[in-house]
Amino acid sequence: MITFSKDDIRGMEKRFRANFINSISGFKSANLIGTSNEAGVLNLAVFSSIVHIGANPPLLGFILRPTHVERNTYNNILVKGYYTINAVPEAHALEAHKTSAKYPPHVSEFDKTSFHSDINSYGVPYVQESPISITCRLESDQLIELNQTRFIIGQVIEVKIRGEISGDGYVDMPSLGVAAITGMDSYHKVFAGTRFTYSKPDQPVDIISE
Amino acid sequence: MITFSKDDIRGMEKRFRANFINSISGFKSANLIGTSNEAGVLNLAVFSSIVHIGANPPLLGFILRPTHVERNTYNNILVKGYYTINAVPEAHALEAHKTSAKYPPHVSEFDKTSFHSDINSYGVPYVQESPISITCRLESDQLIELNQTRFIIGQVIEVKIRGEISGDGYVDMPSLGVAAITGMDSYHKVFAGTRFTYSKPDQPVDIISE
Repeated sequence: MITFSKDDIRGMEKRFRANFINSISGFKSANLIGTSNEAGVLNLAVFSSIVHIGANPPLLGFILRPTHVERNTYNNILVKGYYTINAVPEAHALEAHKTSAKYPPHVSEFDKTSFHSDINSYGVPYVQESPISITCRLESDQLIELNQTRFIIGQVIEVKIRGEISGDGYVDMPSLGVAAITGMDSYHKVFAGTRFTYSKPDQPVDIISE
Repeated sequence: MITFSKDDIRGMEKRFRANFINSISGFKSANLIGTSNEAGVLNLAVFSSIVHIGANPPLLGFILRPTHVERNTYNNILVKGYYTINAVPEAHALEAHKTSAKYPPHVSEFDKTSFHSDINSYGVPYVQESPISITCRLESDQLIELNQTRFIIGQVIEVKIRGEISGDGYVDMPSLGVAAITGMDSYHKVFAGTRFTYSKPDQPVDIISE
């Protein structure tokens, strides 16, 4: 077992620490956030920080770093009030990763990658190749004082699924070909999962499906 | 393609909507949060909402629902100021899921599952079976007004890894046997990933490893 102390972490070379800290929390979702600016230029950027906040009302959050690429996303969200969250197909991981390049605001990532856009009824683009596209309405925009990132929360107002969903509402990511991310740059295919029944004190947990 | 409108989502049966909204954001990390109360009772609870906030300072966040089980975790974090985040080994997914049962504060999940504790120098328990154990110090505790959940942020002050790390700081989850979660109850094994080089405008992206 290797132990890294607070001083060990502080002393890491910058890029090494970025890889390390971005890795240790485990698997992350792989999503493309689609936005539009006032001139109608469509933006697309890969994010691995989408987090479930609650189901009723349906809320999803994500972390925005104070960087260039993501400032396009941020400015567009503030202007339009709507954005889309599109699952990265594992087969298109390289194209998704390309959207992390820092293009200027007048360049659309839809022109720099193989992804195709469609504009929904809220005026924001979704990704035709994504098996899941979620339209969100901005609800909350909080500065995280600790490191000047932002915590953005949106309400889910439309969901498009190119595939089947289970009878109980569960949507199966592996069968839809959705990727997972680890660290800053690794994209993964995922095995079919094992679903367990609701866990109650001192009662056995059964398998729903595997 | 199936489209769910805002009204469709609002009209979903409660459990159906919970499965649906918990699924659509994609893959999630699988971690056990370890805490201790004032009487020394150790608590362990599975969380899928750990999110990367930043690498310098090293910050991780998670969402706390206003429920029973997690109130044990929350109260303990407030009392001690420290907690551990422990990667769920894919081979122990059932045991991890068992920790979501609502046990009263005087019952330790370490006594109700096969996991073994060790107390670190900050007085909080880590999980011996986890390939990665992270000790965090509470930095921020914000109420999310939209649904009365809490957004907790901690600074990473110690990391234990039972395995190897890459020369550039990347920690490989599949080779450490770490699980991913989807929805509320599905645990997944993950394939080895493909790592891509840093993406720059109009330059090709190469493969680091696959």
